[in-house]
Amino acid sequence: MMRIDILTVLPEMIEGAINSSILKRAQQKGLVEFRLHNLRDYSTDTRHHRVDDYPFGGEAGMVMQIEPIDRAISELKSQRDYDEVIFTSPDGEQFTQATANELSLKQNIIILCGHYKGVDYRVREHLITREISIGDFVLTGGELVAAMIADAVVRVIPGAIGDEQSALSDSFQDGLLAPPVYTRPAEYKGWRVPDVLLSGHERNIAEWRMEQSLERTKRLRPDLLK
Amino acid sequence: MMRIDILTVLPEMIEGAINSSILKRAQQKGLVEFRLHNLRDYSTDTRHHRVDDYPFGGEAGMVMQIEPIDRAISELKSQRDYDEVIFTSPDGEQFTQATANELSLKQNIIILCGHYKGVDYRVREHLITREISIGDFVLTGGELVAAMIADAVVRVIPGAIGDEQSALSDSFQDGLLAPPVYTRPAEYKGWRVPDVLLSGHERNIAEWRMEQSLERTKRLRPDLLK
Repeated sequence: MMRIDILTVLPEMIEGAINSSILKRAQQKGLVEFRLHNLRDYSTDTRHHRVDDYPFGGEAGMVMQIEPIDRAISELKSQRDYDEVIFTSPDGEQFTQATANELSLKQNIIILCGHYKGVDYRVREHLITREISIGDFVLTGGELVAAMIADAVVRVIPGAIGDEQSALSDSFQDGLLAPPVYTRPAEYKGWRVPDVLLSGHERNIAEWRMEQSLERTKRLRPDLLK
Repeated sequence: MMRIDILTVLPEMIEGAINSSILKRAQQKGLVEFRLHNLRDYSTDTRHHRVDDYPFGGEAGMVMQIEPIDRAISELKSQRDYDEVIFTSPDGEQFTQATANELSLKQNIIILCGHYKGVDYRVREHLITREISIGDFVLTGGELVAAMIADAVVRVIPGAIGDEQSALSDSFQDGLLAPPVYTRPAEYKGWRVPDVLLSGHERNIAEWRMEQSLERTKRLRPDLLK
């Protein structure tokens, strides 16, 4: 069973996400175990449980201290081996479906969620094995990124979603965008489902889907075809 | 005040995210209003409140129906004008900091979270004004994407974060990666903060930061300098 430990100052931000839908079911099925750890529990400040402090050099914003993070990671590492200690950062490697597939084969992972202005850089130099970015934009913290990584990773563990064929035909797993999908009613406000999908002719439907996939990929994401 | 309406089959997945931290404070300050709408409340199925059905053409997975979505969007539009009706999809335009900055100037936005195998394509053709992707990977649903868009957007609304200078010096706002940050203690387990940051010499510190930003950007994200 895979285990994902998430270190954060705001566990309440993603408790709902990791206990809903597929992630909830994957835990119930024994495929994955999530643990949310509040970094404040590892604070050296016994009164206010602060885990941030002013940056050296007088910049704006607050910086996450190394000591609570080191304590939390050390405690986890004393209990089991970890394959990766991931930090979510906008300057990390870009997360893709390939990253999700690869991480789904790991056993134990720690994800440290950045917050405030950033984390003391010594954490990144000495305690982190891998930095992952979700894209070129800045968020309040890494919590949503951690939940997203967990979702994308757990989703591809065999058995996590009911219908595995569905995951295999997702966008990106075959390098193409998915074709359009339709469901009932066949006509709504004059907007009709393409006739071929109502035809019952399997080969024509398969051909139409492949054409649509290729056309959409060429038009919207030509870079995927290179 | 900005208003963001999120349509979803799993509001519990992101309730925590939009009611924590910066997003909570931005609401308390009257800068933004979030509304989570459960699409099941707009189901035509009065018994089970289903909002999905089998796809035409016999593919695996379930498809979100057009009618509950159309009902929900129509009801919202009857109450106010919306600048955008956004659908979160892996084949949409790539979300970046520029998208976040642009959306932060809008008044009213609807975000529809995709779920299951996808949404009836007629929704995308007729009801959606903009499709946004967070990256080349597949998630269980668009809920985390919607929360992430909300976070990135609200964060840049003036007043949303305490220290605006901090947002301006974030990665990407000036086209460069942010320089390393450090906080106390100056030495931890033999790992020292760079001397320049302890020097109190403002110009040297500013120069060091710019050098670090440039060096990190050249090494990690040369594409940003083109």
